[in-house]
Amino acid sequence: MPTTPHTERHFTGSRTVRDVVIGMSDGLTVPFALAAGLSGAVDSTRIVVTAGLAEIAAGSIAMGLGGYLAARSDIEHYDSELARERREVVELPEAEVAEVETVFRAYGLTREQIAPIIQAFRNRPSAWVEFMMRYELGLEKPDPQAALTGAVTIAGAYIVGGLIPLGPYFGAPTARAALGFSVALTLVALFVFGYVKGRFTGARPLRSAAQTTLIGGVAASAAFGLARLLG
Amino acid sequence: MPTTPHTERHFTGSRTVRDVVIGMSDGLTVPFALAAGLSGAVDSTRIVVTAGLAEIAAGSIAMGLGGYLAARSDIEHYDSELARERREVVELPEAEVAEVETVFRAYGLTREQIAPIIQAFRNRPSAWVEFMMRYELGLEKPDPQAALTGAVTIAGAYIVGGLIPLGPYFGAPTARAALGFSVALTLVALFVFGYVKGRFTGARPLRSAAQTTLIGGVAASAAFGLARLLG
Repeated sequence: MPTTPHTERHFTGSRTVRDVVIGMSDGLTVPFALAAGLSGAVDSTRIVVTAGLAEIAAGSIAMGLGGYLAARSDIEHYDSELARERREVVELPEAEVAEVETVFRAYGLTREQIAPIIQAFRNRPSAWVEFMMRYELGLEKPDPQAALTGAVTIAGAYIVGGLIPLGPYFGAPTARAALGFSVALTLVALFVFGYVKGRFTGARPLRSAAQTTLIGGVAASAAFGLARLLG
Repeated sequence: MPTTPHTERHFTGSRTVRDVVIGMSDGLTVPFALAAGLSGAVDSTRIVVTAGLAEIAAGSIAMGLGGYLAARSDIEHYDSELARERREVVELPEAEVAEVETVFRAYGLTREQIAPIIQAFRNRPSAWVEFMMRYELGLEKPDPQAALTGAVTIAGAYIVGGLIPLGPYFGAPTARAALGFSVALTLVALFVFGYVKGRFTGARPLRSAAQTTLIGGVAASAAFGLARLLG
């Protein structure tokens, strides 16, 4: 038998790490692919920089504001489901009892074994409601403060990620001259980001690194090829 | 007491609806804002169309391929957690018993009332594992087939959404001439999309419509203003 203490290891990163990963993952990929794609069609760095910054503005707002409003909706959804479960525990206790029985009968408990659970729930309606929310609906109480922090974090990470592939275009004479530096810099950044992400999320770091590099590379190649065909 | 039957209403849309919502939400917003932004800086429809199509290629691949690989990771994560719980139920049953006791003591059950639950779990280890996966880890079994279908659906919805704001640029003489049509068409599309999305997700449809329109409008305005400053 193993002698190590029993600890549950899951997603080891905090919420902030998760938000940085979400924002930077897209921020490194899409502006990179757009800049590479445009370099296949136009030679003006000004156009690539303008398009890249416009994309970063649009993408960071869409992700940040979109995420914020979605989180607000989640909170309202939770609150309305909570109110409904609370009402049902009072108004339709027999229906809720039947649901608890269904849950535990599925685990092989008899009616007699389930009775004390139901009695405990009847004595503590708030615990009963919490159990139904979590077990039946799979909902955990969302944190209202986190919605705003998360939106700002995701948008900020998107901007930071997006400025990396765009960097070389600020200094180079032509878009084609900047392309090589941008591709090299961004593929390295994607690899490092994927590796760190793997460490935080519990995935195999090298595999995570290969995946993020692959996604960025495929997206950029497709955008470049498509723009080349049109340009 | 209400006489309506007790039914739980949650997310009423299927997985496909959810994937279409994810893809189209970003597809309508980001290419729209990029095209509007570029129209503030350049007058060539060819450049706007090239940048727009490059963005659609990049965004659909990043979302589709990224989502596919993430779903694959979820499946592997679930399988490894499942294997670990199965092992622990055999090798460290007392630790797992303590975890079950902690869960039910939090609901006010006594040690005597919890005993039959633990006995039932001991008799049916697979039910025990399923309970721990669902209750303790909040994990439900992912569907492997769904990963590929979801990736294709999200990417397809992104492409369809992205072609709407780009449409007017294909026919117009200048980018500035196309801009008005693109803005009008896309804001209507965002409103209709948000309304339908609200109907499917159980949110208030008009409010959902206002939110998606707001996100698209803010993102496009920011991209336009930024590109104007640089152009």
